[in-house]
Amino acid sequence: MTDQPSELKPIRIIVVGGSAAGPKAAARARRMAEHADIMILQRDPDLSMASCGYPYYIGGVFDDRNLLICTPTGVVRDPEFFLRAKGIVARTGTEVVRIDRERRSVTARDLQSGKEETIGYDKLILATGARPKRPPIPGLDLAGVTTLHSMRDADFLRGAGDGAHAKKAVIVGGGLIGIEACEALRLSDMEVTIVEASPQLLPFLDWQLARLVETHVRSNGARVITDKGVAAFIGEDGKLVGMRLTDGTELDCGLAVVAVGVTPNADLAAGAGLRLGPTGGIVVDEHMQTSDPNIYAAGDCIECRHLLTGAPVHAPFGDLANLQGRVAGENVTNGNSARFPGTQQTGICKVFDYAAGSSGLSLEAARAAGFPQAMSAINAGPDKPGFMNGQLIVTKVVADGNTGRILGAQCVGPGDVSKQLAIWAMAIRGGLTVTDMANADLPYAPPFSLAIDQSIATAHVLENKLAGRLIGIEASEVVRKIDAGERPFLLDVRGPDEFEAVRLGIGEHLIPLGALRRRLAELPEDKGREIICYCKISLRGYEAARALVGHGWTNVKVMEGGISAWPFRREK
Amino acid sequence: MTDQPSELKPIRIIVVGGSAAGPKAAARARRMAEHADIMILQRDPDLSMASCGYPYYIGGVFDDRNLLICTPTGVVRDPEFFLRAKGIVARTGTEVVRIDRERRSVTARDLQSGKEETIGYDKLILATGARPKRPPIPGLDLAGVTTLHSMRDADFLRGAGDGAHAKKAVIVGGGLIGIEACEALRLSDMEVTIVEASPQLLPFLDWQLARLVETHVRSNGARVITDKGVAAFIGEDGKLVGMRLTDGTELDCGLAVVAVGVTPNADLAAGAGLRLGPTGGIVVDEHMQTSDPNIYAAGDCIECRHLLTGAPVHAPFGDLANLQGRVAGENVTNGNSARFPGTQQTGICKVFDYAAGSSGLSLEAARAAGFPQAMSAINAGPDKPGFMNGQLIVTKVVADGNTGRILGAQCVGPGDVSKQLAIWAMAIRGGLTVTDMANADLPYAPPFSLAIDQSIATAHVLENKLAGRLIGIEASEVVRKIDAGERPFLLDVRGPDEFEAVRLGIGEHLIPLGALRRRLAELPEDKGREIICYCKISLRGYEAARALVGHGWTNVKVMEGGISAWPFRREK
Repeated sequence: MTDQPSELKPIRIIVVGGSAAGPKAAARARRMAEHADIMILQRDPDLSMASCGYPYYIGGVFDDRNLLICTPTGVVRDPEFFLRAKGIVARTGTEVVRIDRERRSVTARDLQSGKEETIGYDKLILATGARPKRPPIPGLDLAGVTTLHSMRDADFLRGAGDGAHAKKAVIVGGGLIGIEACEALRLSDMEVTIVEASPQLLPFLDWQLARLVETHVRSNGARVITDKGVAAFIGEDGKLVGMRLTDGTELDCGLAVVAVGVTPNADLAAGAGLRLGPTGGIVVDEHMQTSDPNIYAAGDCIECRHLLTGAPVHAPFGDLANLQGRVAGENVTNGNSARFPGTQQTGICKVFDYAAGSSGLSLEAARAAGFPQAMSAINAGPDKPGFMNGQLIVTKVVADGNTGRILGAQCVGPGDVSKQLAIWAMAIRGGLTVTDMANADLPYAPPFSLAIDQSIATAHVLENKLAGRLIGIEASEVVRKIDAGERPFLLDVRGPDEFEAVRLGIGEHLIPLGALRRRLAELPEDKGREIICYCKISLRGYEAARALVGHGWTNVKVMEGGISAWPFRREK
Repeated sequence: MTDQPSELKPIRIIVVGGSAAGPKAAARARRMAEHADIMILQRDPDLSMASCGYPYYIGGVFDDRNLLICTPTGVVRDPEFFLRAKGIVARTGTEVVRIDRERRSVTARDLQSGKEETIGYDKLILATGARPKRPPIPGLDLAGVTTLHSMRDADFLRGAGDGAHAKKAVIVGGGLIGIEACEALRLSDMEVTIVEASPQLLPFLDWQLARLVETHVRSNGARVITDKGVAAFIGEDGKLVGMRLTDGTELDCGLAVVAVGVTPNADLAAGAGLRLGPTGGIVVDEHMQTSDPNIYAAGDCIECRHLLTGAPVHAPFGDLANLQGRVAGENVTNGNSARFPGTQQTGICKVFDYAAGSSGLSLEAARAAGFPQAMSAINAGPDKPGFMNGQLIVTKVVADGNTGRILGAQCVGPGDVSKQLAIWAMAIRGGLTVTDMANADLPYAPPFSLAIDQSIATAHVLENKLAGRLIGIEASEVVRKIDAGERPFLLDVRGPDEFEAVRLGIGEHLIPLGALRRRLAELPEDKGREIICYCKISLRGYEAARALVGHGWTNVKVMEGGISAWPFRREK
């Protein structure tokens, strides 16, 4: 421990930024060094805001705004709290406008008085965060156009659905923040449309899973427009009244939330000549040390290493900001004893009664990142037994076809997605293979999971694919084949009752698994004809496929995830 | 793929046992080999029973008994189902009484007719399960004394709370099954007492966490008696009316559930001269192959390797039975291509509104198993932010003090214990260290977790302990010191309101953290005096301890988990 004896001149630590990484770094530095002189300089009026909670405040999940800026025991995290409980001077409304690296000082401007002051440091921590991207769209400054980034934005949106205000809102951008904003405004009883320029919502998901989310968003009364950008915001008397899309469509709206991503807030660092990376974030090493050894950085303003690809990435997640802040706070006082090794870009969001998230690489990202043999499997199934009211989860897992190492996983559904993703995130972190996961020893009891947990069952599917026992095909490829006139033999092996209640209507043949071996004569005579089997989740579909292979058919596939993962319209 | 071409004589596979491992092995063998001749011989009348679901059927969580023996789409898993859907002959009510290894045949007895038949096999899979231990207590055969093991037991207990039946039940044994039985019978409106011969419930937990469970069980109206065994069951006219404990206490009861553990059902294997291990389970290798290469075994009848200690253990968990069955089913058809590497003994159970579970080694077990430097930390905290209605979890994690490798974790509480345990189970499986966990990249959003997940916060506590920055002390040690007259200075650093609402009353001093640095004069003059800091969860307690160390006190400890993990009676 290198805490400073009080007789020596205490080390002076300045932290720029007071949202997540900054206060965490300051607090950690304090716990490491009781006598350090620690100051937080924060531009915003608040400190330690639980910004990831804004959507739930806006949507009325809770009403007490103070909960966003309080400790768990109800103390507001204001400058007095920081001073008394942590011995940290926190100045709000104070912007750092310049760093003088040679003199080791910052110039801070009081935003109210405009007065500037120079403050010296021994170690500086930059936690300047990110800022919302502002696309170059005419009308972006109209009243009614906002982002969802600051406490002020949250306050504005919280009241947006009330009385005199607009009842129609458009969310520009269908990413994580866009989806959370959509739910919040629907809960505020607004008419909501999401406009997303790319072909799908939630870019961290593969298309099929994103499509399941889209269907769920629509079923909660929101409109979703993909593949179209915004050409202009339309105003009257300086107020938003609508917008025009790139295809000419016009939408009425009194409120627009622009959520097209964030970009590292690295201007201060750049102005001081610190190295920035390809993502625009401040370059730091594992110790969170920048190109200036006296300056550290943490949170949304930096870029960090992707644990699987080694590439620098911008990973603006609140949890990582805290972990990085903790490392920076330790290292400024303790000689780089702590490391933050990098990110897997694990993320999750609530989508009405669903959750959706991802950890690691998608199939496409894996193939692009030096895993050309990457393979994936989609698996659908309940999180718990039916008698415990199990709910569906659809998982797509990605692994290296050579080594079996798990590279990524995505989950969507009303079931316990958060637990599934946590399992996969840890599997990826531990460098586990599909075979390891196939024998994972997870906590099982009926109130909490299936006897074979969804994650393990998913590993079984991918293991069977890797061994060549299961030839999978995704729903979109099935549709492509049908559309291309390829005429695969489509075999639904569920029961007649299930078929009556729900069916795809894509020219399929129904032969229940229990009758299959007696009715082989109904299968194609040509043993080389492509047969695609499925059921509700494609477990019976897989059993059917194995039986058909055993009886000599040579081109038998299983539609992954079955009807539960089908992302298109069904006949019924 | 080594599926048999249909022209050759098909391989004959016999599976003995039809509960979990047996049907799984048979189904996997079928998927591997369409033309294999597969037969399940099952002594019980039912097949593929979801036996872990019995307590929830008994407690009325669901009422349709068929859900325990149906596929998710409602088809009863009876012999006809196995034949039609899987091409597997399943004979119920059929006990295998003898194996002739030389002739590769089994002798099966039809339990109704008593008729015996010899059936040949190429490969045999034993999945004979476990049986409840029957302690040598007089009166064990009285009507009203039962186990909770079979479907028949479940049927009996399901009706036990009704009308004419007994209203007072005693559970003998406070392990996992005992606790589940307790909840089920309380839900059936019975008066329930648990009698446990050891000093605590749930032996897989360390004492302090077990005590938190005990308090919760009591608060749900059940009585708990520990440290006392049962001397005799007392009957009248052959019916149970009470029991006498080892200390002479007598309890009235019309129902007793004996749940003192299970033992491998390995008589058949032993009779055939197969090797049994120290736990009494059948010895198998990673391929689930017994000492006879033509005989495999899986499920509760075997012993398997503990992944951390290498020792053979009996791990009668339903999830492992399925995984082992899958491996055995593959290997009898495919030349030992599959492996089951072993267990971490991960387990969980629901305890009214709590859950409790464990994965890996307890501190004591770790020290005994070759990790003399093992250290632990207890951490308490909510699973989600307060504004999302977060619920408490208390975690105890164990790691190797030399390498930092995580060896075990236990969790208890109303929060999402199942997810926490899954995270720890994967961390253990991946060989991760405390430092790895301190920077884990888990899915974060307020509806699902804290910005710093409970598991990560727990790793931070242990990391600080390993680095010597936090000297922890468990509550029981604090009480021991007080009882021994050691007079540590007890420092509660919460706010006055919190102190008014809840406090330990063990002679503590209240100095809120926010006032601590101004009130150092109230601390012991003797800088070497032992000071024990705490708060609600001991995060502020830790901050206080760091401040005191910074100001020269040399013997400052933090009571781990704070008041939230306090297992004793409080003043208020």
